[in-house]
Amino acid sequence: MRLDQIQTPALLLDRGRLDQNLARMATQLGRLGVPLRPHVKTAKSHPVVQRALAGQPGGVTVSTLAEAESCAEAGIRDILYAVGIEPGKLDRVAVLRRSGVELVVILDSVEMARRLLDEAKALGVEFPALIELDTDGHRAGVPPASPLLLEIAGALGSQLRGVMTHAGESYLAKSTEAIREIAEVERAGAVRAAERLRAAGHSCEVVSVGSTPTALFAANLTGVTEVRAGVHMFMDLVMAGLGVCRVDEIALSVLTTVIGHQREKGWLLTDAGWMALSRDRGTAAQRVDQGYGVVCDLNGAPIGDLIVSGANQEHGIVSSRGQNALELARFPVGTRLRILPNHACATAAQHAAYQVIDGGTEVIEAWPRFGGW
Amino acid sequence: MRLDQIQTPALLLDRGRLDQNLARMATQLGRLGVPLRPHVKTAKSHPVVQRALAGQPGGVTVSTLAEAESCAEAGIRDILYAVGIEPGKLDRVAVLRRSGVELVVILDSVEMARRLLDEAKALGVEFPALIELDTDGHRAGVPPASPLLLEIAGALGSQLRGVMTHAGESYLAKSTEAIREIAEVERAGAVRAAERLRAAGHSCEVVSVGSTPTALFAANLTGVTEVRAGVHMFMDLVMAGLGVCRVDEIALSVLTTVIGHQREKGWLLTDAGWMALSRDRGTAAQRVDQGYGVVCDLNGAPIGDLIVSGANQEHGIVSSRGQNALELARFPVGTRLRILPNHACATAAQHAAYQVIDGGTEVIEAWPRFGGW
Repeated sequence: MRLDQIQTPALLLDRGRLDQNLARMATQLGRLGVPLRPHVKTAKSHPVVQRALAGQPGGVTVSTLAEAESCAEAGIRDILYAVGIEPGKLDRVAVLRRSGVELVVILDSVEMARRLLDEAKALGVEFPALIELDTDGHRAGVPPASPLLLEIAGALGSQLRGVMTHAGESYLAKSTEAIREIAEVERAGAVRAAERLRAAGHSCEVVSVGSTPTALFAANLTGVTEVRAGVHMFMDLVMAGLGVCRVDEIALSVLTTVIGHQREKGWLLTDAGWMALSRDRGTAAQRVDQGYGVVCDLNGAPIGDLIVSGANQEHGIVSSRGQNALELARFPVGTRLRILPNHACATAAQHAAYQVIDGGTEVIEAWPRFGGW
Repeated sequence: MRLDQIQTPALLLDRGRLDQNLARMATQLGRLGVPLRPHVKTAKSHPVVQRALAGQPGGVTVSTLAEAESCAEAGIRDILYAVGIEPGKLDRVAVLRRSGVELVVILDSVEMARRLLDEAKALGVEFPALIELDTDGHRAGVPPASPLLLEIAGALGSQLRGVMTHAGESYLAKSTEAIREIAEVERAGAVRAAERLRAAGHSCEVVSVGSTPTALFAANLTGVTEVRAGVHMFMDLVMAGLGVCRVDEIALSVLTTVIGHQREKGWLLTDAGWMALSRDRGTAAQRVDQGYGVVCDLNGAPIGDLIVSGANQEHGIVSSRGQNALELARFPVGTRLRILPNHACATAAQHAAYQVIDGGTEVIEAWPRFGGW
């Protein structure tokens, strides 16, 4: 089927761009001598995960236990669940571990560390854990220099495997030089925490860091044992706005059809609203606000300065960003367009499958996505 | 299962509140003497749709052909597809119509009207259509007074069934009095368009209007043949912010679990990020910005001034809206909370099913949702 024949809206994935993006990350991390533990939360699709694992040790990162269970079913045996564990989820962790999956959890409190150790003893199962670090004040975690780090390690006892952090602030950086600096803060914080643990007599095998920006711009990863990243596979307009990728490297787009015009306003109406694009407006805080996405032709080339300037549930509004009049007659009802997304994770999550293309306009495969919790 | 036993995040639907919301709409429209054609785009769940159809003629409104196909499978025979039709979707419309479903489409251009008539003749199938009206400059449609209205009617010929409009601007109203005025503009515009069509010799059986705010606050619906609404079933914080409902009438919430604390910042971290809540920030433009949602206890009662002030993919950040320190010790890791959503359509769309409760904390049923296009 060609792109002018499939139903719209549809989620498109350009396999050639995907492979180039994966190769770029592999080259960067190969140069720094650190393996990748790809984060499946962006793609949530086994054919993508398999490609992302090529040449890597084989472990993945997940953001939900449903992802972990799906990866385990697909034969992956080394999984890091990189969202803070809570007691109500330990039963499912235990089921996966008993099935032979090396599932590791994270936490950042003494209370949860104690609970983990107690449950491990009660259930007769190991619950190996990393201590989550906060190296940039972004979200969760313990500051690397905090006394709490050693308290948690003490409470975790035999379950301690190492430390992990995520430099989420890199998404707000103003330059690639700033990203490089954030990467060094991320690395140095994780390594410092690991050294403090070791100095206190704890073992700390794992020193895990990562975000797509810091992974791609780090100059040095000495002391780090693995890098986590997910968005690098697809890239998106937020990454392009950060200078992390070029717009023509974005592998993900939403195929849509023109369903109407508003001549006085210079609007095209399309069948890709926020249900197909997501409500994510990640570029709103960047230098160039891309609305709900950049409008491209069927070959994936941006058309003038057209963006999706508004979105309702199943309606997209396409207009010119500037004062240029949009030549509506060029886009009759039925015209197909492609929209590059603000945020790959959010847009992909609105769809059940990828329609896979390879640079052209022919759909060569459909790759299902998994979801839920 | 009780709410402290099911996996989180999970989408909860309070059946008692749902039924009260449905009764309120039925009473209002019964008083005005106009039937409801419930919009399934919010609920996308057959048990909800069946309840919404009680005492009504039995027709529904859909926003995608996938919804139409799912409703047809569930036995519904009268369906309005209320997003502008385009040529690439006519094959699926034809399949449904040939199966005996009275599926009606909408359009707002001469070109699509001509195409519809041509395809009806070519395929030997009726494609009955409503002309979409623009009564408030919100999105799609033809102004009721426009010459275009009669041109489209002429092009549609035998396929013309009537007119429809949606007062989307009612979502931006500043008072319920303003909503009442918008409802009258919506009604008057639709009736005026119908009268113009009839005066020109066309038949115009259907005069369809609707949005949850205008449906609930209209004082008069003379000349209108049906009302469409969907959000009224669940309500949400945007509707509460408009004065359309009370916060304690919202039937939808997301169950979440505390996974950590950031003491210096006064934050609780939870396992309901934007994947569970949606990226919708509909209250950001209202008088009271509710962040990503209002935080409630397990019984659904708001806790102080707590809101979800930030959200990443699988992390929610809960904090006090004001300067009140959040007593973190009250909410240890593992504590369950419920989040009232900004926008019911967007939040519900992030989940595969509703966990149904009835005022208490016991899950009495699971109602699956449908999705896709």
